[in-house]
Amino acid sequence: MEGLSASQFALVYNSFSFGIATFAAATLFFWFGRSQVSHYYRTALTVTGLVTFIAFYHYWRIFNSWTEAYQVADGAVVATGIEFNRAYRYVDWLLTVPLLLVELILVMRLSREETVSKSLKLGGAAALMILLGYPGEVAVGIGSTRMIFGVLSMIPFLYIVFTLYTSLGAAIERQPESVRGLVRLARNLTVISWFFYPVVYFLPFIVRMSGGTSIATIELGYTIADITAKAVFGLVIYSIAVRKSEAEGAHA
Amino acid sequence: MEGLSASQFALVYNSFSFGIATFAAATLFFWFGRSQVSHYYRTALTVTGLVTFIAFYHYWRIFNSWTEAYQVADGAVVATGIEFNRAYRYVDWLLTVPLLLVELILVMRLSREETVSKSLKLGGAAALMILLGYPGEVAVGIGSTRMIFGVLSMIPFLYIVFTLYTSLGAAIERQPESVRGLVRLARNLTVISWFFYPVVYFLPFIVRMSGGTSIATIELGYTIADITAKAVFGLVIYSIAVRKSEAEGAHA
Repeated sequence: MEGLSASQFALVYNSFSFGIATFAAATLFFWFGRSQVSHYYRTALTVTGLVTFIAFYHYWRIFNSWTEAYQVADGAVVATGIEFNRAYRYVDWLLTVPLLLVELILVMRLSREETVSKSLKLGGAAALMILLGYPGEVAVGIGSTRMIFGVLSMIPFLYIVFTLYTSLGAAIERQPESVRGLVRLARNLTVISWFFYPVVYFLPFIVRMSGGTSIATIELGYTIADITAKAVFGLVIYSIAVRKSEAEGAHA
Repeated sequence: MEGLSASQFALVYNSFSFGIATFAAATLFFWFGRSQVSHYYRTALTVTGLVTFIAFYHYWRIFNSWTEAYQVADGAVVATGIEFNRAYRYVDWLLTVPLLLVELILVMRLSREETVSKSLKLGGAAALMILLGYPGEVAVGIGSTRMIFGVLSMIPFLYIVFTLYTSLGAAIERQPESVRGLVRLARNLTVISWFFYPVVYFLPFIVRMSGGTSIATIELGYTIADITAKAVFGLVIYSIAVRKSEAEGAHA
């Protein structure tokens, strides 16, 4: 098996550290931003910051797990025997993915009934999606367990994508014109960045994934997808909250 | 190869610790300062503090990496075999350099369209500049990889400098007279402190850079350049925000 090269190890190492710094900075930005928006949108920014805060915590853990799993000596990377804990990502997603949908719903400022019912449905489906993926991810080898749970996990995934373009899509089209484009962008950013995850999950069925190149590609890809889905997405949520606050004449 | 002397090791060690303290203190100063300016300038100070916060994090990592890379015993400095991770600087710059340009744009209080478009253009060019520098920095030895990526990285660098004196320069000349000098100073400080980085990057092509003297000079120089470009620059941004708040009659 082709091992991890020193530069692949360093690239992943540096991208994890980048993730820690990005999520910490994003969290503080969103929480400081609470005072820049009217009180209707403060909970949306609280949750937006919670998502990046939870990701900050997990990237810290992932970074430490990565440094424990490998040793670099004289330019060669050697596995220490301690396994890199990929499952931290599932623990992270179980909390953050439902919250991402909740922040989108909150910033839309729907009626209380709609907010609660859509949050429960979409958030519940998101939690179910992650829970179903977990047994497949931790199963030994690339076999039927991974396939079965992957397929089961796709059911809530497709339900969420469907809802984002049908019933939530209709609510998006009722948003004030000044922010409608941004709310659509937030919705599309979610769907696009999320597609990376099932692709990585099912990829081992198509190509051999044990080499250093695939490990580095997967970890770098996850990091970019996480930053897009949480920090960049959060910036769009923040922009929507600021614009709506201004349009509604609330002083910041 | 001439090694690192004990006093060179200590000088770099102490300058990194100085960096940690400076960036932590600067961060708190800028965030406390948010309540001293009108709400138009709070986001600028939030971002100013984020830049120094991110630098604080990376100097903490750089300090630890430095102490892991060398051991001092009986007045002699011995490399431990763990490589000093110079790439932390690139990870830092990838986040902070775009944000530095964003804080300058924010404190100018341009129209929303101009703020967004200039932030995306200049911030994007800055990110591209750092991303292109990284492969050259981590490449083994001083060869064509370092040269090619260095030259590529200079394209967005020169674009930024050009923009700071042309289209952004024109916007600077439209700033209120009471702060115009300070905004020019912030712009000039950026460009002057930034020139240190390509100089260090290309220096190995001209002089032999492996000895202790050059390692110490580079690390000390980077630290001084970082403090100037982030903390001192941030103080200028803070002064602009305070003056504009007062001139616009907003009570602090």
